[in-house]
Amino acid sequence: MLNISHRGQTMPASPIRKLVPFAEAAKKRGITVYHLNIGQPDIETPKQALDAVRQSDFKVLEYSHSAGNESYRKKLVGYYKKLSIDLDPSQIMITTGGSEAILFGFMSCMDAGDEVIIPEPFYANYNGFAVAANVVVKPITSYIENGFALPPMEEFEKAITPKTKAIMVCNPNNPTGYLYSRKELETLKQIALKHDLYIFADEAYREFCYDGEHFSAMKLEGAEENVILMDTISKRYSACGGRIGALITRNKKVYDTALKFAQARLSPPSFAQILGEAAVDLPNNYFDTTKAEYLNRRNLLIKRLNSMPGVFCPNPGGAFYAIARLPIDDSDKFSQWLLESFSYKEQTVMLAPATGFYGTPGLGKNEVRLAYVLNTNDLNKAMDCLEKALEAYPNKIG
Amino acid sequence: MLNISHRGQTMPASPIRKLVPFAEAAKKRGITVYHLNIGQPDIETPKQALDAVRQSDFKVLEYSHSAGNESYRKKLVGYYKKLSIDLDPSQIMITTGGSEAILFGFMSCMDAGDEVIIPEPFYANYNGFAVAANVVVKPITSYIENGFALPPMEEFEKAITPKTKAIMVCNPNNPTGYLYSRKELETLKQIALKHDLYIFADEAYREFCYDGEHFSAMKLEGAEENVILMDTISKRYSACGGRIGALITRNKKVYDTALKFAQARLSPPSFAQILGEAAVDLPNNYFDTTKAEYLNRRNLLIKRLNSMPGVFCPNPGGAFYAIARLPIDDSDKFSQWLLESFSYKEQTVMLAPATGFYGTPGLGKNEVRLAYVLNTNDLNKAMDCLEKALEAYPNKIG
Repeated sequence: MLNISHRGQTMPASPIRKLVPFAEAAKKRGITVYHLNIGQPDIETPKQALDAVRQSDFKVLEYSHSAGNESYRKKLVGYYKKLSIDLDPSQIMITTGGSEAILFGFMSCMDAGDEVIIPEPFYANYNGFAVAANVVVKPITSYIENGFALPPMEEFEKAITPKTKAIMVCNPNNPTGYLYSRKELETLKQIALKHDLYIFADEAYREFCYDGEHFSAMKLEGAEENVILMDTISKRYSACGGRIGALITRNKKVYDTALKFAQARLSPPSFAQILGEAAVDLPNNYFDTTKAEYLNRRNLLIKRLNSMPGVFCPNPGGAFYAIARLPIDDSDKFSQWLLESFSYKEQTVMLAPATGFYGTPGLGKNEVRLAYVLNTNDLNKAMDCLEKALEAYPNKIG
Repeated sequence: MLNISHRGQTMPASPIRKLVPFAEAAKKRGITVYHLNIGQPDIETPKQALDAVRQSDFKVLEYSHSAGNESYRKKLVGYYKKLSIDLDPSQIMITTGGSEAILFGFMSCMDAGDEVIIPEPFYANYNGFAVAANVVVKPITSYIENGFALPPMEEFEKAITPKTKAIMVCNPNNPTGYLYSRKELETLKQIALKHDLYIFADEAYREFCYDGEHFSAMKLEGAEENVILMDTISKRYSACGGRIGALITRNKKVYDTALKFAQARLSPPSFAQILGEAAVDLPNNYFDTTKAEYLNRRNLLIKRLNSMPGVFCPNPGGAFYAIARLPIDDSDKFSQWLLESFSYKEQTVMLAPATGFYGTPGLGKNEVRLAYVLNTNDLNKAMDCLEKALEAYPNKIG
């Protein structure tokens, strides 16, 4: 009999996308669905960057260098320089989205059965890349009560085994929105240096910090060999469909190894490299408007959530996500019920059950992730729906 | 100590790209290098397809569906229909190049340690995807004497073990240019059905067949569950940099499994999906000009090669590659010598040593792969160089 691989069977379906059929059915019934389930920003992609693609005049859509166009990598040196991160183009590898940077990092640094420690809740697709690379995610729990701050050093050390090769951190965090402090990053550095671990740093949302400065793992002095930055332009420039990211490291061996994986897939997408290169030239104040917009949305969302009876949502310092605790029995059932059995003024809201973001089974059952990727008007309407839904939901607790 | 993974250490560097530093050095010395080493066509990407991207007017570069835009998949149904392959859009998954289709296929159907049988010489990057997926390539040798025809059924059966999960075939073949007959495909089907194996079919070059019709593995009746087509638009439309391919199968379980890998990486590139969709609308005779051009080049190349003393090159029936046997000691040394120590009228030629395309160590030492991706004028000059080089090379044999 033809069999599916064990790896394929254990590959998790996307918790963010698994409710899609229910949303589609609701829309067919004429219900407006406010999508707070997925991190697809509604912010316009900068026209100047899109125009660079539209005005391109090459005749042959050629492979680029496997590490990406040199002209783009040189420009990115300037982008990181503004963030006080000194790099050489030979330390930057353009990847097909941040996704591929994660996969290359996992594969270059870990073998089958090796372990990576990740504070949970974490970006669900890390699980997917771990299954693809045959490595094991060891979650250590962060808690909603303190806003999902970094678990203490002892928790990391308890989780370390001879198989542990890396710690992964997303800062500011998806799905919690938590902004790690410089002190927390320094703690991670100590652990990494003491136990010879890589630090995989996902900083997809670094431009969107509302309470305090972002501190990049690339600035950790003395951990130059340990840190591998997995970056992306998807959220920075609202360019998710371009599929352009970067793997960045000062560890030459890791870079050279990742480049072999990059060579096997030939090159990252050419069109969006043009977009990425043009985006580096955007004025310094480009992010101000976007950031102000997200800040407004965050303030509105958190205020609305915390005003609902039984709801608690810590104030996220960055990114455009929040995790809220709801007075419900089961966030999967509730999210499905919202789409299948509920509407308010012919509208409903789509959430991501937090269970999919935890590695430890059973956690997150009364939590949901909300992405504030809608304008404040729609966000208010979505909150109206959620408020009414919590009143109507038959399986409330607490 | 921080270590590179064993997988990363065993990951092969690209045999096609490894001589690049020597080519760059030659160019710095003022030497013109004719690149016959890499399958980057010089054919212009169809303007109509490029224009579709340049005239696009969306405001947000969004994620697409993980399986690719539905509008594109629907159009592709029409493309395959013209090839007498009946498909439903739900059997087509758009991937980031053919590369990703191969990786998803490997990961969905095989676990660590599982084996895939591939006639050698084969496309070198199959090795890379095998290492990435922790699976083992079992080569069975095809021979230059009969133009690299499919090895007999007994050779496949000798190679089959309990770990064997699939046979992979590239038709027409890269690197040999061999065009498999319908009869050969039927033989593969028999083996696959008898031993419950998947057939991974790479048909990147199906539009470029010069002696006889292409017979797609998708037309093998009774093997609908076995066949997984790994397709790409890179060569078809000279759109290598777009990074658009497709995984196509009627096996629903394989499709659903591959989709989970696709969801983890979110979506294929949006810009080039627009290009791919527009390209489906090209007139039916679009390929005629390109094919005629490649045919001219092939005829010239094969004639020139076989007129050189001691050189033998079978006539390839498709794709735009040929493997030639040269009267030399070592194709790696010879290819490097061409770039380092030889020039004729300030020109030289870059070849791909065939050793990188064999899985069995020691094979291909007196063979090179040539990609006829240059116009006939340049191709003639490249052949002049090769002819003079073979006269001058100090380590000739035979």
